[in-house]
Amino acid sequence: MRHAAFDPAAFRWEGVTPRPYKDDPGAARGMGWRGVARHTLVRGSFEVRYFEIAHGGFSSLEKHAHEHAVFAVRGRGRALVGDAVFELAQLDLVETGPWVPHRWVNAGDEPFGFLCTVDGERDRPQPLDDAEWGALLGDPATAPFAH
Amino acid sequence: MRHAAFDPAAFRWEGVTPRPYKDDPGAARGMGWRGVARHTLVRGSFEVRYFEIAHGGFSSLEKHAHEHAVFAVRGRGRALVGDAVFELAQLDLVETGPWVPHRWVNAGDEPFGFLCTVDGERDRPQPLDDAEWGALLGDPATAPFAH
Repeated sequence: MRHAAFDPAAFRWEGVTPRPYKDDPGAARGMGWRGVARHTLVRGSFEVRYFEIAHGGFSSLEKHAHEHAVFAVRGRGRALVGDAVFELAQLDLVETGPWVPHRWVNAGDEPFGFLCTVDGERDRPQPLDDAEWGALLGDPATAPFAH
Repeated sequence: MRHAAFDPAAFRWEGVTPRPYKDDPGAARGMGWRGVARHTLVRGSFEVRYFEIAHGGFSSLEKHAHEHAVFAVRGRGRALVGDAVFELAQLDLVETGPWVPHRWVNAGDEPFGFLCTVDGERDRPQPLDDAEWGALLGDPATAPFAH
C-alpha cells in the first residue's frame, strides 16, 4: 500500500526522483533524444512512468514488441505512431501497438508530460530499419520526425 | 495503434462508452456501491479504466490479490486503503497492494474520477471478513467507510 501526493506547482510526486530518460544519448539513427526526464511512479507486473519533455525536446524514434498506453497530462505534445501524427493535450490517449515506430515531441512552450504504462518485463527498443526510415521521409507529415 | 481524443467538457474519451461499475448491486456486507461509472480505456496484459464517482457516491469496500495503481484526475476523493485514509486530488497516486481492503468515495461536489491500472487477468473482489470489518469500525477515522 502506498500513497504519493502530487505537487501541482512542481509537477512532481512525493518520493519520486526524476532520472534521465535513458542512460545513453542514442548513437543509432533516430535514437537520439533531448530534454526528457523519467519519473518511475509504479513498479510491478506493469509499470507507470511519467515522462516530461522540455520545450524543444523529443524522445527516441524507436520500436519494440512491448506496447505503450500513454495519457497526456501536461502541456501539448505531438506523437508519431507508425504513419500517423497525433496532437496531444490533456488526457488524450495513445496506444502504440507492438513494433510500431513512435516518437514523442514537445509541441508547445511549457513542458509536455505524459503517463506511460508498460509491462514490467519488456524488450529493448530498436532503431527503425531502412524501409521504415524511408517511408517516414517519403511523407511530408512524418518526415519531420526522422532525425 | 490507437488514438482516443479526450473531450474535457464531457470528460469522455472518443469511442469509449461508460458502463455501470459492476453488473450487480453487491449484496454482501460492504459490497454495495453508488453512482460509479466505468470507462474501459485500455485492454491487454494490463488494463486502464477510468472510474467516475458522482456526488455522494462510493465504490465497493473490497479486497483481492490483484493490485490497483490509481491516479486521481477529476474532482476530489477520499480513499480507504487498509487502515489509512487519503484525500485525493489532481494526479495523487495510490497503490492498494494485494489483499488490502479499499473503498473510493467522492469527497466533493463535482464528480470524482480516477485512472485505475490493473493486470489484465485478475481475481474476483471479495468482501471483508469479520476481523477486518471490526477493525474498521474500531477506528473513528475508518468507521465511516464500513457500510
